[in-house]
Amino acid sequence: MKIKIAITHGDMNGVGYEVILKALEDNRILELCTPIIYGSARIAAHYRKLTGIPEMHFNMIESADDARADAVNIINVVGEDVSPVPGTPSAAAGAAAVAALDRAVADLRTGAVDALVTAPIDKHTVQSDTFIFPGHTEYLQCAFTGDEADAPHALMILFNGRLRVALATTHLPVSEIAGALTREAIAGKLRDFRASLHRDFSVDNPRIAVLALNPHAGDGGLLGKEEEEVIKPAIADVRAEGIMAFGPYAADGFFGAGLYDKFDGVLAMYHDQGLAPFKTISMDAGVNFTAGLPCVRTSPDHGTAYDIAGQGVASGESMRNAIYAAADIVRSRAMDDRAHRNPLRRHYYDKGNGDQTIQMTED
Amino acid sequence: MKIKIAITHGDMNGVGYEVILKALEDNRILELCTPIIYGSARIAAHYRKLTGIPEMHFNMIESADDARADAVNIINVVGEDVSPVPGTPSAAAGAAAVAALDRAVADLRTGAVDALVTAPIDKHTVQSDTFIFPGHTEYLQCAFTGDEADAPHALMILFNGRLRVALATTHLPVSEIAGALTREAIAGKLRDFRASLHRDFSVDNPRIAVLALNPHAGDGGLLGKEEEEVIKPAIADVRAEGIMAFGPYAADGFFGAGLYDKFDGVLAMYHDQGLAPFKTISMDAGVNFTAGLPCVRTSPDHGTAYDIAGQGVASGESMRNAIYAAADIVRSRAMDDRAHRNPLRRHYYDKGNGDQTIQMTED
Repeated sequence: MKIKIAITHGDMNGVGYEVILKALEDNRILELCTPIIYGSARIAAHYRKLTGIPEMHFNMIESADDARADAVNIINVVGEDVSPVPGTPSAAAGAAAVAALDRAVADLRTGAVDALVTAPIDKHTVQSDTFIFPGHTEYLQCAFTGDEADAPHALMILFNGRLRVALATTHLPVSEIAGALTREAIAGKLRDFRASLHRDFSVDNPRIAVLALNPHAGDGGLLGKEEEEVIKPAIADVRAEGIMAFGPYAADGFFGAGLYDKFDGVLAMYHDQGLAPFKTISMDAGVNFTAGLPCVRTSPDHGTAYDIAGQGVASGESMRNAIYAAADIVRSRAMDDRAHRNPLRRHYYDKGNGDQTIQMTED
Repeated sequence: MKIKIAITHGDMNGVGYEVILKALEDNRILELCTPIIYGSARIAAHYRKLTGIPEMHFNMIESADDARADAVNIINVVGEDVSPVPGTPSAAAGAAAVAALDRAVADLRTGAVDALVTAPIDKHTVQSDTFIFPGHTEYLQCAFTGDEADAPHALMILFNGRLRVALATTHLPVSEIAGALTREAIAGKLRDFRASLHRDFSVDNPRIAVLALNPHAGDGGLLGKEEEEVIKPAIADVRAEGIMAFGPYAADGFFGAGLYDKFDGVLAMYHDQGLAPFKTISMDAGVNFTAGLPCVRTSPDHGTAYDIAGQGVASGESMRNAIYAAADIVRSRAMDDRAHRNPLRRHYYDKGNGDQTIQMTED
């Protein structure tokens, strides 16, 4: 069975349709997965002409079950009266973005699709009485666990072919970063990162580099004490559990010397510390993956880009990579599940002296 | 007259000698400037052999006035009993580093040399009763102004052929960054940056990009209020004075999109925000320049690198660029001084009605 991937159109006034169509334009992608766009064939056709993309055939369907494996499928979630205004935030575009998400998540739940790829939304226009989330991650966490509180196990990972960066804190003002970084929080992120590298990226015993919080990694305490008091103890905690974590490394020297080539993943302490160097390296090609969710969800690493919407200059590379990555992760998880499907039963035998039972096998 | 450049040996147990000798190995550099190493010919010869650098001639001199224009000159500041131990911090190396700095600064004061290039020191081993500075910048500030307090006008600029990044805050723990960024402080850094781009880099009317503090540039206040309350007002203040400052830009998108190519300088809010992307781009080639001092001082953008000291694997490129840059900045300042040497006198004439004097020329 080919992997079915739900692609939500995001904000119809941003670059969403353009990057989706550019990603699907080369139909070799259909050999790898079956794409289903949640949006509007009418708006897709409008953007195709507007941005100078060659003629494409869309297979309009009512349900994900009807998707054709050799076509770009579209499920309509937008009313006929709704039209895009490239570059302009609007409540209508926010509502259309949420409609696509709701429908795609319903299909994810039933297993009608295998993974979700999201085009960028506008955090400001999507808010309503029923949608009160700062972003995709929190919405999905709630949809799959019913927990509206901060998602403790969602982990943001940015990656390309060369580098995977996870964030210990994500959308926090700089003034709140140091306070949020506890020993337990960092150790927890390292466990989640290790689990994702193993299950989602098929890395057997991943080596993880941990970045320092402060400049020069605190310089022995002269430039901040978090390295000594929080980060190093957290690394020691998870190493005691067998997780191959190293550091903390001063961020500038780490990226400058290209040390990331020696690790399977890099845990950055905050958003810009990880993302500014990552985007410097990956340019248009990075993928955002939310680890720790029951579903597989990826997205391109850019936003709505209103300033260039409808102009035909957006790159579809990050979206294309996000689609390929979603398919890869679905496969990696399936492989991991198969490997653990029939564990040997635990088996003990009594050696006769009461307190010495020997465990023969572990699952 | 050729420009004389004092090069201090830094920590003799780090990569200082190796990068200095590699930078001077190609003697075309002698066509541009006259280098004077403040250190030890004996230790230089030791490292030359240890790191596999071809035979070089050193011209040993007693005073900078004796420097030969066509040679690598060395002034000895180290006792005969002092020997290097590559990779090992020591009080002896710290004292030798300070001895070189003291002598070079004395020569800078008298004009015996035109600029200073510093190899990296170890902040921990240089401290003594008479040397109580966290680094070169503070030491030089004190030497030239007598002010031991924080240097208000020293501005750290990292640059290569493509990008100049200045730091609004430098060696601060992350927990203290937001508190240190006031409207006045940022406006002051923008004025200093503009002045340095003009005088030191010969950019007539420099365009300066200002990075945001918070992720997504605060996202309209959702992720921090400093953009609205501090950074934008500071930009408005200096724009009213005619300084071409723009922003604030979210750091990850700014570097990811290569927007720095459109500006003459980038003001980052803190150390890792500017330096991690900068070093990712510049690799081994970046130069550190301390703007705002009466003297010209540059350095390579790496540290003592004890872990690779004496192994012959350090790159001399950053040091070579630091030497070239020091010479360039001395020339740019001289050109600026010549341009302003004989300003026309202000000249007024009375039009007869008392309050209307017309200024004919400005200097």
